[in-house]
Amino acid sequence: MSSEITRIHTGAPENLQERFAHRAQFMQPSEIRALFAVASRPEIVSLAGGMPNLTALPMDMMQNVVSELIKTNGMEALQYGSGQGHPKLREQICDVMELEGIKAHPEDIIVTTGSQQALDLISRIFIDPGDVVLVEAPSYVGALGTFHQYEASVVHVELDDNGLIPDRLREAIAQTRLSGRKIKFLYLIPNYQNPTGVLLSAERRSEILEICREERIFVVEDNPYGLLGFDKPSPNAMRAEDSENVIYLGSFSKTICPGFRVGWALVPQSLKEKLVIASESSQLCPSNFAQLAISSYLADQPWRDQISSFCKLYKVRRDAMLTAMDKYFPKEATWTKPEGGFYVWATLPAEIDAKALMPKAIVAKVAYVPGTAFYADGFGSWSMRLSYCYPTPERITEGIKSLGGVIQKEMDRRSIGN
Amino acid sequence: MSSEITRIHTGAPENLQERFAHRAQFMQPSEIRALFAVASRPEIVSLAGGMPNLTALPMDMMQNVVSELIKTNGMEALQYGSGQGHPKLREQICDVMELEGIKAHPEDIIVTTGSQQALDLISRIFIDPGDVVLVEAPSYVGALGTFHQYEASVVHVELDDNGLIPDRLREAIAQTRLSGRKIKFLYLIPNYQNPTGVLLSAERRSEILEICREERIFVVEDNPYGLLGFDKPSPNAMRAEDSENVIYLGSFSKTICPGFRVGWALVPQSLKEKLVIASESSQLCPSNFAQLAISSYLADQPWRDQISSFCKLYKVRRDAMLTAMDKYFPKEATWTKPEGGFYVWATLPAEIDAKALMPKAIVAKVAYVPGTAFYADGFGSWSMRLSYCYPTPERITEGIKSLGGVIQKEMDRRSIGN
Repeated sequence: MSSEITRIHTGAPENLQERFAHRAQFMQPSEIRALFAVASRPEIVSLAGGMPNLTALPMDMMQNVVSELIKTNGMEALQYGSGQGHPKLREQICDVMELEGIKAHPEDIIVTTGSQQALDLISRIFIDPGDVVLVEAPSYVGALGTFHQYEASVVHVELDDNGLIPDRLREAIAQTRLSGRKIKFLYLIPNYQNPTGVLLSAERRSEILEICREERIFVVEDNPYGLLGFDKPSPNAMRAEDSENVIYLGSFSKTICPGFRVGWALVPQSLKEKLVIASESSQLCPSNFAQLAISSYLADQPWRDQISSFCKLYKVRRDAMLTAMDKYFPKEATWTKPEGGFYVWATLPAEIDAKALMPKAIVAKVAYVPGTAFYADGFGSWSMRLSYCYPTPERITEGIKSLGGVIQKEMDRRSIGN
Repeated sequence: MSSEITRIHTGAPENLQERFAHRAQFMQPSEIRALFAVASRPEIVSLAGGMPNLTALPMDMMQNVVSELIKTNGMEALQYGSGQGHPKLREQICDVMELEGIKAHPEDIIVTTGSQQALDLISRIFIDPGDVVLVEAPSYVGALGTFHQYEASVVHVELDDNGLIPDRLREAIAQTRLSGRKIKFLYLIPNYQNPTGVLLSAERRSEILEICREERIFVVEDNPYGLLGFDKPSPNAMRAEDSENVIYLGSFSKTICPGFRVGWALVPQSLKEKLVIASESSQLCPSNFAQLAISSYLADQPWRDQISSFCKLYKVRRDAMLTAMDKYFPKEATWTKPEGGFYVWATLPAEIDAKALMPKAIVAKVAYVPGTAFYADGFGSWSMRLSYCYPTPERITEGIKSLGGVIQKEMDRRSIGN
């Protein structure tokens, strides 16, 4: 009924721009926003999204978890909670992190509304306009957006098949400091990185930690995919080696489900109070219901087995994608071979602009994310992120076949043009 | 097990302060933080908190809501959702707001993690360091904290038993502009204000709207308590009269429960896109589960009757508090007579410092929030906020009796000292 109200488009009040804060000019729609609307149409094979595949999550089990939670502890679950997060869940999070070698104290954990909120709070605490944040090249689009809103200057550091390259990091630090700018932290995703799927080697983890300690640069280790290694566990988390200089971000979005929006930050003691205060200012407290649902799930359900089920499901899809790429992608293209997580990163011959190619791909009923979305500096035109997490293996094969055809056709068109 | 890890207190890394952003210096623990830890001890009658009383919420009904949600729509409820919020819930929110005279379109609503997040996002969009935000004197402590973190300069505007005084608003605007500062918005709580319990009269609503339109100042109308009028409905929301200049904040925390953390902002069209982008940067999307739980509740349960039950419950407690204050408070004190909501605001004789009195009150087993918490400028020393929402009527009577005794004793001590 209310939705029938006619909206009269009066446009923006005059000079609205000058009534905004300076940072508001950086709140612009991302180039992939429109894309996702198109990619979600059912006839399109979407290799664009990063949504976890919940077909492996038993719904009767989840139903039991939430139902029992209200029955046994409804008054607490439906009430306000602590700004830092529920003590019981914070203890359980320590157990989860132990799987990646982390020894932590629940007092140093702040529960957040997804790890995106943690990223936002870290940015809030550290970034003054113009400060530098070092990130992998390419890096997670959601992190770039947040850094951008805090008016950070993002400096990309090259990675290869073994992750961020330590020598490039040294160079980036030296060059940035030469230019007189302050570096606030290094942000990286060591495990099955978004968007490349690359795993940072154990040796490089230690080397990067040493560099950052020496240079007094905090490491923000974002680790949503660490437990999703397909054939072997990922190396220990960087936080396992350094509890004083690493800010660790975790999430249940990929190991359980994203619908509760429960993530966390594990921080050096010196940062905790500011983070809690920033979080309270931003949302008072995280949802008690969501936290206690995750807590009950961890306490009563076989969550390690469930993660194994997810790994099996994603591995089959990863295999389908790589097999199809071998078969259908032009030999001039290259791509990563992820050992876990959600993503393959493909690099096309340099004359092919992946963004310009999108409309043709959509016509061929397949969608991906153009590489430029993952760079703050316009780089990445001839790259694309291909997600295998969500569609069925058959659909993935179909989509890659179509996409390979579209790329080949474009290459043919270009070589005729030459 | 993890909790047994010993934390070695190494202290903050040297010069950490200079590694923070400028705004981090404003992230300081509020003076009421320590208080709440004390006030939550079971032997204390806490008149300090603003937690809604969930004894009137039927838990079997809530259990049914969440259980059915997973059963019928689990795959959506547990997945990522839209940054702006679920379309169905946004339609239902329009119906809820109609009860206060608001005609809105679901497209203009952004669902947030409690209305605190909406406050944070509004601040992010508007406030540059040094910008002025006008607020009632006194005002909601959580809003003051957020404005503070965005480095706003808060200017208080006097209120009386009929709410914010329009002439004082005119003066504050004129004086602020004379000093060369930019006013970004007026923040107010028209219904059963936190902390005073005061209701803004219908006439003043119109007058304030006119002033703000004329002066090109946005009105941020925070309305968590609007449906909690005890004997008659509150006047129409200010947003009902002005859809172009009012940013309206709503919440289900007091009408259903706070544990899902679902609030919303209804904004002029010209602000919507920026708000959605800011929200995505801060948390990607609000919890689908939480939104759909509220949505199912609104669709299938007698939510209007439930609000009536809450009103009855709070009215009995309000009555208990006012009756006890008449009986036990010294005649030199004055206090507001709320017609709805959670709070009474008491003013003591000027020589009594409510903050200094707290330890004596705690010894007498009663807690409240000292008035200074609700001012950005150190004002309010001889005031206190008394919440009647949570304890039983018997406990309220007991607590007020103790508190009246503590105040009387302090007055006696002072007059002897003179």
